[in-house]
Amino acid sequence: MEQHGAVCYVLKAIYERRSVRNYSGEPVKREIILEAIKAASWAPSGLNNQPWRFAILWDPDLRDKIGSLTRYGHIIRNASVAVAVFLDKDVSYDYIKDCQAVGACIQNLLLALHSMGPGAVWIGEILKNKEAVRETLGLPNNLELMAVVAIGHPASKNQTSTRKPLEELIIFER
Amino acid sequence: MEQHGAVCYVLKAIYERRSVRNYSGEPVKREIILEAIKAASWAPSGLNNQPWRFAILWDPDLRDKIGSLTRYGHIIRNASVAVAVFLDKDVSYDYIKDCQAVGACIQNLLLALHSMGPGAVWIGEILKNKEAVRETLGLPNNLELMAVVAIGHPASKNQTSTRKPLEELIIFER
Repeated sequence: MEQHGAVCYVLKAIYERRSVRNYSGEPVKREIILEAIKAASWAPSGLNNQPWRFAILWDPDLRDKIGSLTRYGHIIRNASVAVAVFLDKDVSYDYIKDCQAVGACIQNLLLALHSMGPGAVWIGEILKNKEAVRETLGLPNNLELMAVVAIGHPASKNQTSTRKPLEELIIFER
Repeated sequence: MEQHGAVCYVLKAIYERRSVRNYSGEPVKREIILEAIKAASWAPSGLNNQPWRFAILWDPDLRDKIGSLTRYGHIIRNASVAVAVFLDKDVSYDYIKDCQAVGACIQNLLLALHSMGPGAVWIGEILKNKEAVRETLGLPNNLELMAVVAIGHPASKNQTSTRKPLEELIIFER
């Protein structure tokens, strides 16, 4: 992570970010959530169509309802806030590329949160109930649930993770 | 981007990254490409299945061939190097979530490159010829092309971009 003699904070954030599922209970400031969503929106998208939309779920009762739609409900309940990320199918131009763009957007969200202090975890398992989530939130059917991100200050900071070595990921170099 | 009185370099990188399509011709170091691919691999994925694979294309003749498969071929030819990103369908567990994870991985790649100096652009249009790209590179059919990222030092640095205002992206806050 040393670059021209200085730490590269971007690489540091990418390598140190973890999926945070246990929270201290310390409140997360609204301005941090809005800044992280702004950062999310600066992901690239095909034709710059920016197909991502966000619902910010602070209300514990609402998070309890949404939590009942995933086996990871306790994480959504124990978080300080959750952000439901949707694809707006009305502006979609290519479903697969739009899903990739939303993935890039969620990664920006996670990195931005990590860089400002809170931790977060990307919950995809809830997509099995994506229609129920949409209906519970009272949203029109052009909005397709892509993920729920649970957010809170981490209860601990020594979490480890692993990745495959580069040799297994690089098919060839030519 | 001020956070606790210090610039947040992660937000700065997210906001200042651009899709770079014009290159100075200055060579890009191999160690930067490998570090950026390592950063890409630290994206989250469902069940940590890490479905991304990478082919690094330095050879101008090879990039010329791949370039002929997209209307953005001149960008791939004028770049210093290109990285073709694949989904390994043998480790896929959910196609949509895997495509999202690859999107997160590509965003890490782009941010890491930007933070180390080179610029890059995510080329999705080439997916119309994804089978031909795979065959040109002599790869097995478990590898599905997800994008080609063209990489080089930027010819200029004053490029602007725009995003929708947050009010259009946030469905509700409750």
